[in-house]
Amino acid sequence: MSSVDSRPTKARMEAFSDGVFAVAITLLVLDIKLPEVDAHASLWHALGHNWSHYLAYAISFLTIGVMWVNHHNMLHTVEFADHGLLYSNLGLLAVIAFIPFPTSVLSEYVRDGSSEHLQAAVGLYGLTMIALGTTFSLMWLHIYHHPEIRRRGTTNALIRKDVLRSCGGTACYATGTLIGIFLPYLALAIFAGLVVLFAVARPATARATVS
Amino acid sequence: MSSVDSRPTKARMEAFSDGVFAVAITLLVLDIKLPEVDAHASLWHALGHNWSHYLAYAISFLTIGVMWVNHHNMLHTVEFADHGLLYSNLGLLAVIAFIPFPTSVLSEYVRDGSSEHLQAAVGLYGLTMIALGTTFSLMWLHIYHHPEIRRRGTTNALIRKDVLRSCGGTACYATGTLIGIFLPYLALAIFAGLVVLFAVARPATARATVS
Amino acid sequence: MSSVDSRPTKARMEAFSDGVFAVAITLLVLDIKLPEVDAHASLWHALGHNWSHYLAYAISFLTIGVMWVNHHNMLHTVEFADHGLLYSNLGLLAVIAFIPFPTSVLSEYVRDGSSEHLQAAVGLYGLTMIALGTTFSLMWLHIYHHPEIRRRGTTNALIRKDVLRSCGGTACYATGTLIGIFLPYLALAIFAGLVVLFAVARPATARATVS
Amino acid sequence: MSSVDSRPTKARMEAFSDGVFAVAITLLVLDIKLPEVDAHASLWHALGHNWSHYLAYAISFLTIGVMWVNHHNMLHTVEFADHGLLYSNLGLLAVIAFIPFPTSVLSEYVRDGSSEHLQAAVGLYGLTMIALGTTFSLMWLHIYHHPEIRRRGTTNALIRKDVLRSCGGTACYATGTLIGIFLPYLALAIFAGLVVLFAVARPATARATVS
Repeated sequence: MSSVDSRPTKARMEAFSDGVFAVAITLLVLDIKLPEVDAHASLWHALGHNWSHYLAYAISFLTIGVMWVNHHNMLHTVEFADHGLLYSNLGLLAVIAFIPFPTSVLSEYVRDGSSEHLQAAVGLYGLTMIALGTTFSLMWLHIYHHPEIRRRGTTNALIRKDVLRSCGGTACYATGTLIGIFLPYLALAIFAGLVVLFAVARPATARATVS
Repeated sequence: MSSVDSRPTKARMEAFSDGVFAVAITLLVLDIKLPEVDAHASLWHALGHNWSHYLAYAISFLTIGVMWVNHHNMLHTVEFADHGLLYSNLGLLAVIAFIPFPTSVLSEYVRDGSSEHLQAAVGLYGLTMIALGTTFSLMWLHIYHHPEIRRRGTTNALIRKDVLRSCGGTACYATGTLIGIFLPYLALAIFAGLVVLFAVARPATARATVS
Repeated sequence: MSSVDSRPTKARMEAFSDGVFAVAITLLVLDIKLPEVDAHASLWHALGHNWSHYLAYAISFLTIGVMWVNHHNMLHTVEFADHGLLYSNLGLLAVIAFIPFPTSVLSEYVRDGSSEHLQAAVGLYGLTMIALGTTFSLMWLHIYHHPEIRRRGTTNALIRKDVLRSCGGTACYATGTLIGIFLPYLALAIFAGLVVLFAVARPATARATVS
Repeated sequence: MSSVDSRPTKARMEAFSDGVFAVAITLLVLDIKLPEVDAHASLWHALGHNWSHYLAYAISFLTIGVMWVNHHNMLHTVEFADHGLLYSNLGLLAVIAFIPFPTSVLSEYVRDGSSEHLQAAVGLYGLTMIALGTTFSLMWLHIYHHPEIRRRGTTNALIRKDVLRSCGGTACYATGTLIGIFLPYLALAIFAGLVVLFAVARPATARATVS
């Protein structure tokens, strides 16, 4: 055993982040509650009536999953993790770990709530997405302003594209959340559409550096 | 600290997947509810009455565990992880993380439900298994169609065997689910039997490459 | 990125096992329920009345923690993971992941149950510990009978000591469980004492091979 | 596959600890309960009424997160993990994994409880923080008294600073807990302030060794 065995800061930060992402994405299933069905009612019907839980599960799972891919791509541009990166990463993880709560509120009130309830549930979800985009943008900004922690070959121009992309994504979520005040179902469709878009559109640094 | 410390895409994908598998397999225990027993009733009796929970725990634990082994063997044929592999892997993980829900429904309605409830619970479980087999087959197909991400020595002929094996397994689950419409207990026995079969029958690539 | 990056079977088995151990040990806290206290009652009193939950948490946390250390020491004697080791490891993990359930039953019925309830709760816990010792012994036996997967320098004589130690521990748990039929509190003290003993008494291979 | 693949004791201890930290920090969200709102009440109002849950989530998330950073910095001074370090680490992890419980009690009784309830909830939280500081200090003391497990360049003088810092932090938590008997809200502000302080003030060894 030599000091080579000691994992550097970046590797442990990745491992810790992977753990939080993996737990948060798997806890989502706990929001899918077992429907209570009496002996004469149809279980298939009750399972189908649960559709809002499956939809919320799908959107949130994909959101966390796509964010994990983006997080991976982001850290690929970094050579060392400094304290600023550790703490801005902690901010991002706080939002990731929080996602099961707005997901649970959404799946409950999209189906059964009044229109005011639906509005509030979509609003809470949108605010969480804005927080997600903001903390993610802060990490990119930190990397942009600290070239000394970056991997060689990651130019300012390249990083700037990802900063803009991330801020743009946050602005889209903010727009969706505002729309949700009037048209909550459209806002939901926007949230679902955005995550598919982020999955398809790879970041600039990913195109340049990931094989 | 040098760039050697940076974990490549494949290593982080494995770590993230291991996390989701580990959390999902451990969350299964939360479905085993503490039986409510009053002062005069027998706790042993209540624990025994819980048999469907232990059975569902055992089947789902083994299913996720065997799938983890297969997932490991599959990734052993791969040298690099591209975006297609990352996202098809995310699809598989979405099903893995979902398994605690149908397990919970199954353990509740196998014991106490009407025959229609039992049918629906077995049907939901079967549909989940079909989704599991399908997403797993999609990953194999992606590897088959992208030889550039494969490890040297993994020939098309070898991969094709695992694609067929995986599609065959999915077909078995589909057959079991269909049988479950008429004979739900037989379908359960088929699901339990299939997972034992998958544990015993190692994939072609595992025989060729794993020591 | 070269094939060096690919994690071998043993490393992923360790990572998956570490995940299950970590999740199971952390899920234990979910059994500690928030006491319901009305406005005029004392919360301190209610928190104190919860003592059986803290005791069960402590015993189970230490049991899983010590088992993790032993598991680590065991795998230190192994160079490669074969399918037999993967599946006997899966059996051990199934018991580890199950521990939150008997812990929950124990913490509920040690305090409030009738003596018959107490007996059953201690019996269930004891049976789980026997299953834990048995699956752990099976892993040691597999390593004993497959010298080809062992690290150089791990002689049969050395492994035999750990096989015997593990079987001996299982026998102690079986004795404690039998005693629990008549004297459940004594059985609990034995379970607590055994885990402290296992923490203090290091296995033969650990003394020989770990730093 | 060669023996290079075998992960040394320290790497597995880090991986296991990262897992417990990640699960504990993510389980905190389960304490944020979905508010029950009837059709005529405002969901926004109910979500706002939940403020104590968000506050407790924020404080506990930051506490576990900062402790993870400190834990990482601590292990950076260590070259090998001996049994003493493994078991004192297990003690720390037992407190980390316990944190969701006092957090849950706090978020329930800060908002709705009588002043006696509030006192008890803050007291329980404070005692947990004292236990956290104590187990963390014990790890530092173990490292201080076992220079043979330390990385080269970590002098006694350097480690002594971190021992004192850790003991000082524990004393601050003890003071806050005592104050909480009379002024529970002030104690809460102290707990929140301390975690921000620990985030800003980096340990001596971190300044010396982490890039």
